[in-house]
Amino acid sequence: MNHITLQVKGMSCGHCVNAIEGALREIGAEGKVDLASGTVDVTYEPAQVSIEAVKEAIEEQGYDVA
Amino acid sequence: MNHITLQVKGMSCGHCVNAIEGALREIGAEGKVDLASGTVDVTYEPAQVSIEAVKEAIEEQGYDVA
Repeated sequence: MNHITLQVKGMSCGHCVNAIEGALREIGAEGKVDLASGTVDVTYEPAQVSIEAVKEAIEEQGYDVA
Repeated sequence: MNHITLQVKGMSCGHCVNAIEGALREIGAEGKVDLASGTVDVTYEPAQVSIEAVKEAIEEQGYDVA
């Protein structure tokens, strides 16, 4: 399992948390949003999910990954 | 039709807009959220919808009506 912490802009409320964590779940990754720090901790299996797919899943919800 | 502008705290993003406008639609009122000013313009038929029901619909979504 890989683990990465991404800086993500635009996350502001519980709906944003649900949108991002749900989108990561859909691609088979696990995300944990921290609104206070503007970060998402992502755990994923690199044999099955690419880091590009992780970033894309977040960006598709309307957020900017730094 | 009655029209009222409510000050609502905690609205931060497009998800919040959808949650509040959707909840108002469900009780038969029409809402328009303005994130910049933190206000919701509500139009409703007082014979069918009470102002208490309007406020309750917004509060049930997790926001504070001033």
